[in-house]
Amino acid sequence: MNHCISLSDYTANRITHVFDVAYDLRDRRSRGALSDVLKNQTLAMIFEKPSLRTRVSFEQGMIELGGHAIVLGQEVGIGKRESVADVTRVLAGMVQGIAARVFEHDRLIEMADHSSVPVINMLSDDAHPCQALADVMTMMDEFGRDLTGRTLVYVGDGNNVAHSLAIICGKLGINFTIAAPPGYELPQAYVDRIMADVPGMNFQLCSDPAEAVHQADAVYTDTWVSMGQETEKQKRLAAFTGFQVDEELMSKAPSHAIVLHCLPAYRGVEITDGVMDGASSRVFPQAHNRLHAQKGLLAVLMGGC
Amino acid sequence: MNHCISLSDYTANRITHVFDVAYDLRDRRSRGALSDVLKNQTLAMIFEKPSLRTRVSFEQGMIELGGHAIVLGQEVGIGKRESVADVTRVLAGMVQGIAARVFEHDRLIEMADHSSVPVINMLSDDAHPCQALADVMTMMDEFGRDLTGRTLVYVGDGNNVAHSLAIICGKLGINFTIAAPPGYELPQAYVDRIMADVPGMNFQLCSDPAEAVHQADAVYTDTWVSMGQETEKQKRLAAFTGFQVDEELMSKAPSHAIVLHCLPAYRGVEITDGVMDGASSRVFPQAHNRLHAQKGLLAVLMGGC
Amino acid sequence: MNHCISLSDYTANRITHVFDVAYDLRDRRSRGALSDVLKNQTLAMIFEKPSLRTRVSFEQGMIELGGHAIVLGQEVGIGKRESVADVTRVLAGMVQGIAARVFEHDRLIEMADHSSVPVINMLSDDAHPCQALADVMTMMDEFGRDLTGRTLVYVGDGNNVAHSLAIICGKLGINFTIAAPPGYELPQAYVDRIMADVPGMNFQLCSDPAEAVHQADAVYTDTWVSMGQETEKQKRLAAFTGFQVDEELMSKAPSHAIVLHCLPAYRGVEITDGVMDGASSRVFPQAHNRLHAQKGLLAVLMGGC
Repeated sequence: MNHCISLSDYTANRITHVFDVAYDLRDRRSRGALSDVLKNQTLAMIFEKPSLRTRVSFEQGMIELGGHAIVLGQEVGIGKRESVADVTRVLAGMVQGIAARVFEHDRLIEMADHSSVPVINMLSDDAHPCQALADVMTMMDEFGRDLTGRTLVYVGDGNNVAHSLAIICGKLGINFTIAAPPGYELPQAYVDRIMADVPGMNFQLCSDPAEAVHQADAVYTDTWVSMGQETEKQKRLAAFTGFQVDEELMSKAPSHAIVLHCLPAYRGVEITDGVMDGASSRVFPQAHNRLHAQKGLLAVLMGGC
Repeated sequence: MNHCISLSDYTANRITHVFDVAYDLRDRRSRGALSDVLKNQTLAMIFEKPSLRTRVSFEQGMIELGGHAIVLGQEVGIGKRESVADVTRVLAGMVQGIAARVFEHDRLIEMADHSSVPVINMLSDDAHPCQALADVMTMMDEFGRDLTGRTLVYVGDGNNVAHSLAIICGKLGINFTIAAPPGYELPQAYVDRIMADVPGMNFQLCSDPAEAVHQADAVYTDTWVSMGQETEKQKRLAAFTGFQVDEELMSKAPSHAIVLHCLPAYRGVEITDGVMDGASSRVFPQAHNRLHAQKGLLAVLMGGC
Repeated sequence: MNHCISLSDYTANRITHVFDVAYDLRDRRSRGALSDVLKNQTLAMIFEKPSLRTRVSFEQGMIELGGHAIVLGQEVGIGKRESVADVTRVLAGMVQGIAARVFEHDRLIEMADHSSVPVINMLSDDAHPCQALADVMTMMDEFGRDLTGRTLVYVGDGNNVAHSLAIICGKLGINFTIAAPPGYELPQAYVDRIMADVPGMNFQLCSDPAEAVHQADAVYTDTWVSMGQETEKQKRLAAFTGFQVDEELMSKAPSHAIVLHCLPAYRGVEITDGVMDGASSRVFPQAHNRLHAQKGLLAVLMGGC
């Protein structure tokens, strides 16, 4: 079965194919010639956590491909009111695809194990593959489809977004550097998995953001306080002092470097208004690429493209 | 007006007609030839209680019939923020059908009284007619369209699901036996209504599950603790000791007997993993028949089929 | 950009054009010949407050015009989790229109400032333009398309609904009288704005409902306790004594006068059952005109009609 739980499971060829389809669909859209490759297909979307971009981009993606989305929230009680396997088997007999935003990544793996239709990760504690696809698509918009040898510098918290970014960079030959304060680097288990998965990749850890961005083609940041970490807020804000993506930091990067952020942004915290709204920012095209990249993925997984 | 509040209001002929349409639509679906009999029609769905199967099967049913669903939750404040009659009259002027999951059955009757479009019961404290349609359709899949003289044995709580099952069994000439511990049989008011409704039916009460399943073509169970009964949980678990549908109980049933459960299942409580995932289980086809049976009902009520 | 934040921004000609389109679309609907002018267009609907009529009328409106709606609730965290401008820019790149029900009117203005697609006010603390369009359409149904010199008498709380009504009346040459108890008249800031906006309009304040309705073609009321004012409930109920729209008050109005209410109605409080369900009531056609008037607006703003 065709799932998208983590990009670890995808070859570079498969990722490239998703982008081929995504670019073709984006091109059609701009010409007003939408494809209806998912006509009569429905994606059930389950949200254990709130969502804006993911919700709208997936639902609109299904609509633009001629299909439908059914949006389910916490009322489903998946894993509480009813076992993950049972919910999955019921849904898989009614709809043509399942997407889920979950707290625990293992829940997605369990869903995939019991599903006769594609299962898509819309964010877990472990990975955010659809975000990574949109991020790389935005780099491709800037630097061309072949990103081999380009460098993405992630400044901030070594979270699920950083994890998926590292993997897709490894798969596509992009150098990946993460600049994080001590204790907030990518967990060693993630690093081990990345290294096992893409052994030859150029992966660097760096504790000095200014040094890290020196060779950057793209500088990426994300919130320092993710959903569920609100109680650690003060501690985290203190730890990340000096890691803000601001005008000074960007002055250390090459002038052609673009700025990315997966949003929502806490302006004045991990990124300044000046950078986010400045000439180097590709933050909003990146958000819009959530729609386009995911349409590529949906068309491949559910439409056989 | 064509409503579906309780199957008490339906003749055997009408029920049979719903199944005729449901089977035809299911057959078309399997051939990839969906009907669009509800094109340009919208079903407003109101949920006072959470839902997975009902939500997805109705929304997907409308989609597959070429129509649309608008899903409303507790924010509607029906009966609180605004009278039932007023909400109904407003909706009936905008959409072509109304479905509601409510606490109090009388609310559905009041809606039907004020509606110029079909009103459908998606579960009340009193009845669950759409579940009963899916259940009988699953028996038809196994034993053929004529179920006269077959026996359904319901083991467990005499709740709204059992009530609707008894009625549809009576209407279609299926023998209905309920095995329930003292105090949890079908309320006498339900029994009186069933008897008034289908006077000649073969309805039996039995306190011994092993004896009850002896002649079963289908053994049915449901949770012992329904939504809203969480405070009685310990008391209920104690009362239902010995009423679990497990391998031992099924060994007393004929070898051709199938197992049904309307889900969500509390595995290890009212049913064991072994039975639910065993060769006799039709639990997941039954869940999928929610979609197919309800499509038949929607096509009849809203599409004039 | 074409927005609808307040009818203050609209000329009489533009308002009349919206009604032309709305009447044409309603006529087509009654002939079963729906327009698909918004095919491949999606409206994102954001609700900070609960909604029934607005939700269903906009979502169904988009469906009937061949388009789609994506409904977002408080989980969006607009202005909290993420800045209003950022949310708007993200949405505007994915969908073709944005509608929002907000607490603070300024939020809508900020959205419109940052949006490349139409923004529609679905209710703010300040204005409810879509309600006013439906209200006037209901008067047109009764008295013809030219309402010059007709009189609308609003009996009750000088709230956002009254504000938008006064503006549309001024724009279209309808006399507007508000009968409210002291302290609950339209705020002076609203009155100043109305006078600046439509300087020549016939706007009257009156503290005696019986006197006010004497010349009425339409008598309008709304709840005395709007969403968010529940703590003032007792105080408000006392202040509005004598302002109920009941049979006695209606006996003071001309016999041809119709009764309007934007719903939800608290029957027996601001309006009696007898009036609401009586021969003069146009309350339910008025609610249904939400659908028709808004379809006109959507077709103009998003479809270029």
